[in-house]
Amino acid sequence: MTERATGLPTNQKQVLLRSRPQGIPQPENFELVDGPVRTPREGELLIRNEYLSIDPAMRGWVSSESNYAEPVPLDAVMKSFAVGTVVGSRDDRYPSGSRVMGLFGWQGYATVPADAVISTVGHPDLSPSLSLGVLGMPGATAWMGVRLVLEPQAGETLVVSTGAGSVGSAAGQLAKVSGARTVAITGGAEKVRICLEEFGYDAAVDYRSPSFAEDLAAAVPNGIDAYFDNTSGNVSDTVLQHINIGARIAISGTAAIASWAPWPEGPRVERHLLTCRARMQGFLFFDHLDRLDEALDEIAGLIRDGRLRYREDASDGLETAPGSIAELYRGENLGKRVIRLP
Amino acid sequence: MTERATGLPTNQKQVLLRSRPQGIPQPENFELVDGPVRTPREGELLIRNEYLSIDPAMRGWVSSESNYAEPVPLDAVMKSFAVGTVVGSRDDRYPSGSRVMGLFGWQGYATVPADAVISTVGHPDLSPSLSLGVLGMPGATAWMGVRLVLEPQAGETLVVSTGAGSVGSAAGQLAKVSGARTVAITGGAEKVRICLEEFGYDAAVDYRSPSFAEDLAAAVPNGIDAYFDNTSGNVSDTVLQHINIGARIAISGTAAIASWAPWPEGPRVERHLLTCRARMQGFLFFDHLDRLDEALDEIAGLIRDGRLRYREDASDGLETAPGSIAELYRGENLGKRVIRLP
Repeated sequence: MTERATGLPTNQKQVLLRSRPQGIPQPENFELVDGPVRTPREGELLIRNEYLSIDPAMRGWVSSESNYAEPVPLDAVMKSFAVGTVVGSRDDRYPSGSRVMGLFGWQGYATVPADAVISTVGHPDLSPSLSLGVLGMPGATAWMGVRLVLEPQAGETLVVSTGAGSVGSAAGQLAKVSGARTVAITGGAEKVRICLEEFGYDAAVDYRSPSFAEDLAAAVPNGIDAYFDNTSGNVSDTVLQHINIGARIAISGTAAIASWAPWPEGPRVERHLLTCRARMQGFLFFDHLDRLDEALDEIAGLIRDGRLRYREDASDGLETAPGSIAELYRGENLGKRVIRLP
Repeated sequence: MTERATGLPTNQKQVLLRSRPQGIPQPENFELVDGPVRTPREGELLIRNEYLSIDPAMRGWVSSESNYAEPVPLDAVMKSFAVGTVVGSRDDRYPSGSRVMGLFGWQGYATVPADAVISTVGHPDLSPSLSLGVLGMPGATAWMGVRLVLEPQAGETLVVSTGAGSVGSAAGQLAKVSGARTVAITGGAEKVRICLEEFGYDAAVDYRSPSFAEDLAAAVPNGIDAYFDNTSGNVSDTVLQHINIGARIAISGTAAIASWAPWPEGPRVERHLLTCRARMQGFLFFDHLDRLDEALDEIAGLIRDGRLRYREDASDGLETAPGSIAELYRGENLGKRVIRLP
């Protein structure tokens, strides 16, 4: 193999899933091990990972609960979005030297079917790490929810939970571009400040505050026309009190509920959806890949114009991976959480 | 006034709302009284009611709970759909002799603003009473839910709750015209039989049966793509277990829940809507009046072709009105419930 001749290593570090968590994945559910670097076969790529992505959806990926994908098997490399450079190619679509984003896992090198690539990384004037955040699944998820599901109109009020996250911050700014009044729901004073000062929300309220319900009511004097929901739970129950006739609710995530097996109880929404002729709709990034280029081109343009800002929190090395999901759910990061590999 | 010269009466029977029910309206919430027949002023019509309509929505109309219309005031004539003939006109759009459908109330004669008319009654080859049922709000509601919200495709499975009612039976048959497999949820063996033999459902299950959950599962071997929901509650919770990716849920009514103040608890739907990328949407007849003629023309055509069947249960006289809503909620009628006036 020419790849071996170029000095590629034959083994590497990988993070395996060792047990299924009850609720949030913890460091002890994973193990950092030595593993092989497998030579790619026909139709496969060998990719050197440069950045790994830590996303709320990873909790679902390791859960045995009903979900939209098969769970990661025990003792397999943890599934993860990553961005890297093709260093060995047996697929003509992605020659060596290509920079690609896809599901390459928590490991230094990934030998994967070429179909594991979600997109080639464009916009070379911007950092490749952004293809895991504002120019990747989180940013494109925000775009799909705002542009395809919520479609906010000028003068409407759009609420985002949570408004400072990598998805939410992009959603709020995309809605602002459409002329909507934007309101962030977020956790803690520092994130409220970031929402107002960096992400340009018209208002931001702290869901941890005892006056959350009153604060939200005051922040939406004209009611709520569109709700980008990453949380579910009490936050959403409070939002729903304020929806207007014809409101749209895009369900992008359910981070506020620790377990969905069995389904937890909550206020029944049917009568309220009927009275308001409102629409509540789940959507998923992978169902709209035909719009991905359009999404990323709009976002890249807004970044270059200074109209869309983002935050990134990077840690160094695979050894920071096992604890990273729990950190995310504790809300310790202030920007898109990535892991930089050497 | 020429109307008085034509021999119109100066007084009449009316049914007034005397108290607000807790839950289902009962006979004692109403009173049959003698009242005046008021001469129409400019812009008003005097209408002789021929048929009154009894609809599940009337429970909401007399409730002080949050709803999509102001409640009927105490001591006012009970709000009701009705069909009648204009016998005195001060509005050029509806000359004397016109047959009209609208909110004319539980009374023999209605003096109303011409804007109370919802539609002129067309299709003169069919009974005017149908403008309260399959050619009125119930039928058009079914059309709007199926054609505008659910949009069933050939080969998809569409479930209707409840499938034998005036809305549900039309919804099922309209979906069948689109090529869907249709499944009725209904109450009792007689309604199951009617659903299969008269309304052409591919399957029908009894929600009162102890084996309801298993029966429904057996009736939808390919899952559920569209759900026309008139019930909410346990019926809907069971339906939701079977929805497919991309399912649509049209909320048309919530008859299975006796009170919505405060909101009752039920299984949270957010995660399931997300996992299935499903859409749950409330809709209301009055928001789609621009499509009413189109709806009624399609339905009338299907009736004439023998492809859409309906049932009607008529009682005689205003004195049968006060108990009629409670009868409806007890499920005593097997067809669209109307009251025929002399």
